[in-house]
Amino acid sequence: MLEKSTEERRERRHTSTQYEQELTELRQKLLRMGGYVEEMIFRTMQALVERDSELARQMIEFDHQINRLEVEIDELCLHILALRQPTASDLRFLSTAMKIVTDLERIADLGTSIAERAIELNEEPQLKPYIDLPRMAEAAQKMVHDCLDAFVERNVELAESVLRHDHVVDELNEQIFRELLTFMLEDPHNITRAMRLMFVSKALERIGDHATNIAEMVIFMVKGKIIRHMGKNAPPDTTPSA
Amino acid sequence: MLEKSTEERRERRHTSTQYEQELTELRQKLLRMGGYVEEMIFRTMQALVERDSELARQMIEFDHQINRLEVEIDELCLHILALRQPTASDLRFLSTAMKIVTDLERIADLGTSIAERAIELNEEPQLKPYIDLPRMAEAAQKMVHDCLDAFVERNVELAESVLRHDHVVDELNEQIFRELLTFMLEDPHNITRAMRLMFVSKALERIGDHATNIAEMVIFMVKGKIIRHMGKNAPPDTTPSA
Repeated sequence: MLEKSTEERRERRHTSTQYEQELTELRQKLLRMGGYVEEMIFRTMQALVERDSELARQMIEFDHQINRLEVEIDELCLHILALRQPTASDLRFLSTAMKIVTDLERIADLGTSIAERAIELNEEPQLKPYIDLPRMAEAAQKMVHDCLDAFVERNVELAESVLRHDHVVDELNEQIFRELLTFMLEDPHNITRAMRLMFVSKALERIGDHATNIAEMVIFMVKGKIIRHMGKNAPPDTTPSA
Repeated sequence: MLEKSTEERRERRHTSTQYEQELTELRQKLLRMGGYVEEMIFRTMQALVERDSELARQMIEFDHQINRLEVEIDELCLHILALRQPTASDLRFLSTAMKIVTDLERIADLGTSIAERAIELNEEPQLKPYIDLPRMAEAAQKMVHDCLDAFVERNVELAESVLRHDHVVDELNEQIFRELLTFMLEDPHNITRAMRLMFVSKALERIGDHATNIAEMVIFMVKGKIIRHMGKNAPPDTTPSA
């Protein structure tokens, strides 16, 4: 009896370690995906500013890698949900992780769209020097970085700082729109190029929105009250042995 | 012993009924949210076409109701994940539901943006009669309807038909862009209004994209292979009584 009990304890400790390892693996994969997405933003903007269509095409390819990582993370979350019995807090973490990867994947899609616009823009003379767009990209990239750190560290303050910074990206977008509008009014020949640049600006703004969405989910995950008293107090009839 | 066993069976049947009820409630709430979102698309377009700014403002208010429903559905999913032991198939259904409500909520956000553009457009003379935009909205609305039905019924064929219909919305968007571009080239005074209408068109295209995303998740949910053999065969050390 004592032996069995010891074995059980050992078994449980083993499982708990495995569980911890899986959660660590999840955090690492999420951060890796975040890193890829940041790289995507940085390098598609580089492709635009340096008029490097080859780099733009590489980034369109890179998107597939990000998509695969999304599926891997989803599967890992489902694996943990199915085989471990996550606490209420971990349950919220896992379900939020699955929502967040969707946002990250869509940021990468926006990166792909920017790369496509860059290729089109590189085929024509440059309309104007790009100054505000790289600043906007930098701000959006930082938002992505911070919201993901906030998620992995369950850091509400950092998530709130992301929400506070969204207006920087929004204001740059409006400024760029107004400036490009004057180019369009000046000469109809500018319209197509100006609209492509507006598209890039809008895509960066939407990247900021995705980061904001992630930050909001992090805050809700940490502060959300409705579910957090569950799990441990689950009625016995929910286990198969009841 | 026999009595206890009967009681256990009764207990389990009771739990199973509760579980079934919760899943039914979830499906109903998802369909209700889908209905709200469809109404949002239909009525914001009505506000645009009939130049009814009061209706547009009502729709901006309506968005809050949709947001609340999103939180309710999320909480219900977490409740079921925490207290029941969903099978691998239900686990995938629940995690997909949580992803889908995020898409539905963002479709409603796009509806809000269309309503805002409608209010702005109603303050100026109408640039042109709206013919293709309502057709596009109708197509997007049908995609939303079908992808959600596909999800609730786990119907892969219906989900695949949504994917096949996305090009209708995309092609209408391109056609509208080209037409509005000629208005812009004709007279710079048209630029602002034409851009607002382009925004509406783009928003409808993005609604179609969200429906496509949902349809893809439904197909992955039903056909996904990696997790589906788990759950029932979970090793004994994953239950607290092991």
